[in-house]
Amino acid sequence: MIGSHYVNMLQKKSVIRELSEFAAARGKEIGYENVFDFSLGNPSVPVPAAVTETMIRLLQEKDPVELHGYSPSLGIMHVREAVAASLQERFGVAYSAADIFMTAGAAGAIAHAVRAVTVPGDEVITFAPCFSEYFPYINGAGAVLKVVPPDTDSFQIHFEAFEEMISEKTAAVLINTPNNPSGVVYSTETIQKLAEILCRKQEVYGHAIYLISDEPYREIVFAGVDAPFVSAYYDNAIVCYSFSKSLSFPGERIGYVAVNPACVDAAGIVQMCGQISRETGHNCPASLIQLTIAEHLDTTADLSVYETNKNLLYGELTKLGFACVEPGGTFYIFPKALEMDAAAFCEKGRKYDLIMVPGDGFGCPGYFRMAYCMDTEKVARSLKVLRRFVEAEYPRRR
Amino acid sequence: MIGSHYVNMLQKKSVIRELSEFAAARGKEIGYENVFDFSLGNPSVPVPAAVTETMIRLLQEKDPVELHGYSPSLGIMHVREAVAASLQERFGVAYSAADIFMTAGAAGAIAHAVRAVTVPGDEVITFAPCFSEYFPYINGAGAVLKVVPPDTDSFQIHFEAFEEMISEKTAAVLINTPNNPSGVVYSTETIQKLAEILCRKQEVYGHAIYLISDEPYREIVFAGVDAPFVSAYYDNAIVCYSFSKSLSFPGERIGYVAVNPACVDAAGIVQMCGQISRETGHNCPASLIQLTIAEHLDTTADLSVYETNKNLLYGELTKLGFACVEPGGTFYIFPKALEMDAAAFCEKGRKYDLIMVPGDGFGCPGYFRMAYCMDTEKVARSLKVLRRFVEAEYPRRR
Repeated sequence: MIGSHYVNMLQKKSVIRELSEFAAARGKEIGYENVFDFSLGNPSVPVPAAVTETMIRLLQEKDPVELHGYSPSLGIMHVREAVAASLQERFGVAYSAADIFMTAGAAGAIAHAVRAVTVPGDEVITFAPCFSEYFPYINGAGAVLKVVPPDTDSFQIHFEAFEEMISEKTAAVLINTPNNPSGVVYSTETIQKLAEILCRKQEVYGHAIYLISDEPYREIVFAGVDAPFVSAYYDNAIVCYSFSKSLSFPGERIGYVAVNPACVDAAGIVQMCGQISRETGHNCPASLIQLTIAEHLDTTADLSVYETNKNLLYGELTKLGFACVEPGGTFYIFPKALEMDAAAFCEKGRKYDLIMVPGDGFGCPGYFRMAYCMDTEKVARSLKVLRRFVEAEYPRRR
Repeated sequence: MIGSHYVNMLQKKSVIRELSEFAAARGKEIGYENVFDFSLGNPSVPVPAAVTETMIRLLQEKDPVELHGYSPSLGIMHVREAVAASLQERFGVAYSAADIFMTAGAAGAIAHAVRAVTVPGDEVITFAPCFSEYFPYINGAGAVLKVVPPDTDSFQIHFEAFEEMISEKTAAVLINTPNNPSGVVYSTETIQKLAEILCRKQEVYGHAIYLISDEPYREIVFAGVDAPFVSAYYDNAIVCYSFSKSLSFPGERIGYVAVNPACVDAAGIVQMCGQISRETGHNCPASLIQLTIAEHLDTTADLSVYETNKNLLYGELTKLGFACVEPGGTFYIFPKALEMDAAAFCEKGRKYDLIMVPGDGFGCPGYFRMAYCMDTEKVARSLKVLRRFVEAEYPRRR
């Protein structure tokens, strides 16, 4: 009687997981320092010491019954107030606590937001390249994910294809900027054009089209890059945030949904998230973790290593002749493979202990992702290996 | 386009929440120490100091990138191993790590277990009185919850009604022992009879009927009470556990699913839980919390206060003429109200600052729940107030 639906999900192997298992196994043979594992998006810098100090202080000083007590189902009130105040001060959008719902990272946030604004059968549109887990989040809500093909020149939005895909059934549009896997940040021009189209289509179809903005990389933007706050440009916007990358805190599962207060029934959507939680059995992120991040909303881990690494990799990849859009943020780069079949390309890379992820799973065949959240020293060492790989396997490209 | 389903859920007010809000507001008027708030099942004793010390040590000594890193989707391997070893040693069932899935408390565990063993349209049977949140967990899976009427003489199982309710569509049976709200522990005889019926019905219908055992109160059992480990009596049994009550840790959202290794495709069910998480966006309990409980699996908070409180309350209630099954565990007691309408009874109690929950929401009208997770001093003070309430409002009962 076990659900064939989940059995099917299980049988589709996770490419990234397989690659990282290969990397771990290879690491046992030759030392993990010699495996250039660009497969996993795990932050490589520590959480700020001040965050650790806050956790220890809370554990030492706060009444344990209160500290570890149940959180209200929407999140601890003063935590929601602090999140709203921080967003308001930084981005000039008038959030209040009523617009904030605390979640288990961006994953929990997206799963809730999609359930809150769709009914089964609705369509949600996203843009390639995109995070592969969008499929389960949207399918799990009973909605259908439609993927707009990529604009590979810039990895901004392919607007013509997007306009063609919008229909009466479009309940929401899901974007991810700065983007996993491309590293690209959507420009102000892109966000304005997107908002303009959505406003127009809302009028055409006579219902709200929500813009769900997945922002776990919001704080990892490189020097001089234009990185607009999406919700400042569109009323029916819902932020899905995670502290995983900005605070190097991924295992602690903390993030939030922030509904633009100008959104149709903003507080109602937040209340609905609480009801959705009742069904999925997920009742809030851990209290200790909520209380901790409330004191560190405006700080980040030292994220500078990611830009340093980007510069090294982007420089070498372009020298080696890769077509590659320069990342504006995140810790990913997404070059075009040197042959049509990116999986074959990545497979060849393995011989050189270069672990890279083919773009197929991100809806963008022919490209590959490298996650450079690692020590700069290792990235520097990888450059020679990359060169050796390209010169040996693709000699005519040189 | 917002889901009417969730709007409906939202409109059904939570009686318990309303009561506890009333208690909080009244507390501001007359001092919370003077409000006898028996509404909420919040543990009232602190987490063991050793648990706090473990958390501080992990924060001080462990590499933060590793400590706060992503957990594998089924839980951290050595945590799963430790849970399996502890269950095996304590209860003699041969669990291994492959049978364990780490969850956000029992809520997360039940939501996952039900999705893993049902397909939409299947039926899940439970027994009144039962925890009201079973409805959203089961509805959210697309299954239908059927509630067997209570055996009010003992609050064990009404087996005749149960047998009539089992059908071809029964995919799972959900039990909660020690029970919220009755406080009753199912006896070995009850569990054996239940297992015997399930084995017989599995043969009749030719498919597995899973026994989902919701066990957050497993460690709160009073002296001399027979409290069998359910999974030792039935192969297709799935434990849903939470550390919320045993470690006084409810806000930290930690528990597990433990599938009996003798269960049909035990490891497959655990793998499926991981797939279910991908859809609900719940990727594991917080890493720090997982690592912490792994070191404290065989300890509990000082739970003795609950038995002391039970003795006081049970003694007084029976003296006052209440029909009441003596609780064998938990921190609840579930007497029969002194009039047919338990809501009216509880409403009258409010005048005396006695906050009690009518049994209707637990599928058992005419009864009321008192949660006695509070200082014994306060329970002792409440007895006189109870007496005053009964003597004034129900004089002919005396």
